[in-house]
Amino acid sequence: MGICMKAKIIITPKKAVLDPQGKTVQSALEHMGYTGIGAVHVGKYLEIELPGTDKEAWRKQVDEACHKILSNPVIEDYQFEIE
Amino acid sequence: MGICMKAKIIITPKKAVLDPQGKTVQSALEHMGYTGIGAVHVGKYLEIELPGTDKEAWRKQVDEACHKILSNPVIEDYQFEIE
Repeated sequence: MGICMKAKIIITPKKAVLDPQGKTVQSALEHMGYTGIGAVHVGKYLEIELPGTDKEAWRKQVDEACHKILSNPVIEDYQFEIE
Repeated sequence: MGICMKAKIIITPKKAVLDPQGKTVQSALEHMGYTGIGAVHVGKYLEIELPGTDKEAWRKQVDEACHKILSNPVIEDYQFEIE
């Protein structure tokens, strides 16, 4: 089966969780002159090539993979789309 | 000035660059039973809160920040939207 679809997944720390990497990027940007910026959140981005054309079946599988393997649901949120 | 806009930035390794993290995720997914998946690409996701309402001015600044600070243009591509 050829690769026809792609899952695009964004994993971010939950709002209540400390995000030291985001803080670091924020203060780096401010030091570089980008003043006035608000909070910065740093997360992960994944793209997975998927075979076939059954979007709904993959949606279920990708959701499960995000929950079980790709993210840590205790401290992270995820969102994805398949296109 | 209040925070009114958000820049959403995706940074991915260029296609020609080795992506060992992507390879690792791909083989982990295959071992967990998600057979048939194609290549996996792992990148970074950043969300930056921006003050004011001047989208075009920020678009220029975010583009510059992506190029100079947030990504490594030799091995990474970036894309962003401001909303």
